[in-house]
Amino acid sequence: MFGFLRSRKPSSAQTAKERLQILLAHERGSGGGSDPDFLASLQRDILEVVRRHIEIDRDAVEIKLERSDDLSSLEINIDMPGAKARTPG
Amino acid sequence: MFGFLRSRKPSSAQTAKERLQILLAHERGSGGGSDPDFLASLQRDILEVVRRHIEIDRDAVEIKLERSDDLSSLEINIDMPGAKARTPG
Repeated sequence: MFGFLRSRKPSSAQTAKERLQILLAHERGSGGGSDPDFLASLQRDILEVVRRHIEIDRDAVEIKLERSDDLSSLEINIDMPGAKARTPG
Repeated sequence: MFGFLRSRKPSSAQTAKERLQILLAHERGSGGGSDPDFLASLQRDILEVVRRHIEIDRDAVEIKLERSDDLSSLEINIDMPGAKARTPG
């Protein structure tokens, strides 16, 4: 399953940098039902959580949302050039 | 990128159910540096965030962690059989 990150084209300056990729996939099944904006609100909260752990620049976050009939997916790519670990709390 | 969820073998009873899959990949690059337990602590916080949005059973969560030299990845699969949307807050 490592392929999904490896498959990004490395830009010359970024190959040695730290990166975090988060993929969310929500399969609604035949029932439909849950909030169509579920992934979008999860995305906001997850980015908040990530910011609690590391310092990230807003410009270093790239987000792609895809929807089909019964499946929504969200891809969050974060470049962490000068990532410093934060102490939790 | 839908393949990664579709590729799970559907069990007969689960095909119509709602599912959420979260993949985290952390590429440390050549510098190393950040906390090796970064993904594990992110996982806990992200599950907390998901629980704020939907009711999930602890038994319905399946987690796989993989590590290689410069890349850690974490896969969280959540079955949402009777998922009810929660009002935030």
